Amino acid sequence: MNFSSKLLEDAVDAFASLPGIGRKTALRLALHLVNQETEQTETFTEALVKMRKHIQHCQICHNLSDESTCVICADRRRDRSVICVVEGIRDVMAIEDTQQFRGLYHVLGGIISPIEGVGPNDLEIDSLIHRVQQDEVRELIMAISPSIEGDTTIFFITKKLKELQVDVQVSTIARGVSFGGELEYADELTLGRSIVSRVPYSKE
Amino acid sequence: MNFSSKLLEDAVDAFASLPGIGRKTALRLALHLVNQETEQTETFTEALVKMRKHIQHCQICHNLSDESTCVICADRRRDRSVICVVEGIRDVMAIEDTQQFRGLYHVLGGIISPIEGVGPNDLEIDSLIHRVQQDEVRELIMAISPSIEGDTTIFFITKKLKELQVDVQVSTIARGVSFGGELEYADELTLGRSIVSRVPYSKE
Repeated sequence: MNFSSKLLEDAVDAFASLPGIGRKTALRLALHLVNQETEQTETFTEALVKMRKHIQHCQICHNLSDESTCVICADRRRDRSVICVVEGIRDVMAIEDTQQFRGLYHVLGGIISPIEGVGPNDLEIDSLIHRVQQDEVRELIMAISPSIEGDTTIFFITKKLKELQVDVQVSTIARGVSFGGELEYADELTLGRSIVSRVPYSKE
Repeated sequence: MNFSSKLLEDAVDAFASLPGIGRKTALRLALHLVNQETEQTETFTEALVKMRKHIQHCQICHNLSDESTCVICADRRRDRSVICVVEGIRDVMAIEDTQQFRGLYHVLGGIISPIEGVGPNDLEIDSLIHRVQQDEVRELIMAISPSIEGDTTIFFITKKLKELQVDVQVSTIARGVSFGGELEYADELTLGRSIVSRVPYSKE
């Protein structure tokens, strides 16, 4: 790309440094800002800088938060005896959007992956064990991806709980053919496992 | 989307205000910034604010520029007798990338479009006429989209030049089947016109 303006080129480089933004898209975004009032660019950038400077990880569940304790952990109406363990904050948002879960969360910050150099100490596993030991936690729901890494992570956590003789029920979220999903379009693994893990028919 | 952080929500709203960025992409971008150092967000936003505050339109050709005269207009080695008339600055960049044109440009800032409320006075047409009258311009190359609006714009400019009895050659860029393009995939209009506007075969 031939730029007649170094300022524009720098702005395009800035946008293109974001993941999934190519240089053509970056140019479109930069020209959009040029066509708007200066205040709009200032409002835009201030929101980002403010977020980056002041956002914290909740000291209890490690979810992103404005305060040292996030709104979910601070909500006294939620069931504190059930903790849903997830990889990242996007999972928290997805589960919250369902409005089906009223317990608390624990964000691991990833899953154990030797290939990517992520070991148990890089994740919030110790703090999870500590939480379960300290608080009266009845159940841990593992909402973690069903990959080798995910399974390893679940195995590691349950093994550690057993070693420390922590009495807590561990469950995983149900996997199977999605509601409304046509059988012929389900992938083989999901369909196969959904037959193996069939559930008794209930009339409710 | 359920946000546990207002700061994050504001950042996502900011990204989603850009054209072509949905809320899922906006969330991905905002979380990317959270996972980087604070300085990275500052460098990113500073490039945008600096660009927006200091970028100018070249006083001669209305291309975006760091100075009051853009690098193309300031380049004394370029042929000042040929002006390529384009809709926007992206067209300038596309033509510059070809390295086939060594004249100057004139950015209209759009084309005449009654439906979108763009009249001749909203565009840099008067300044173009003025340039042609003032400087020794031999040829105007109209590199404008071949739509009704584009044709109207070209017609308006040539009519005005004739009224003012300005002696300048007006040409348009060649349209036809692209080099390497298969005939069967060319659209009907392009293929039809390319037959009507056939050129004599040269052995060069």
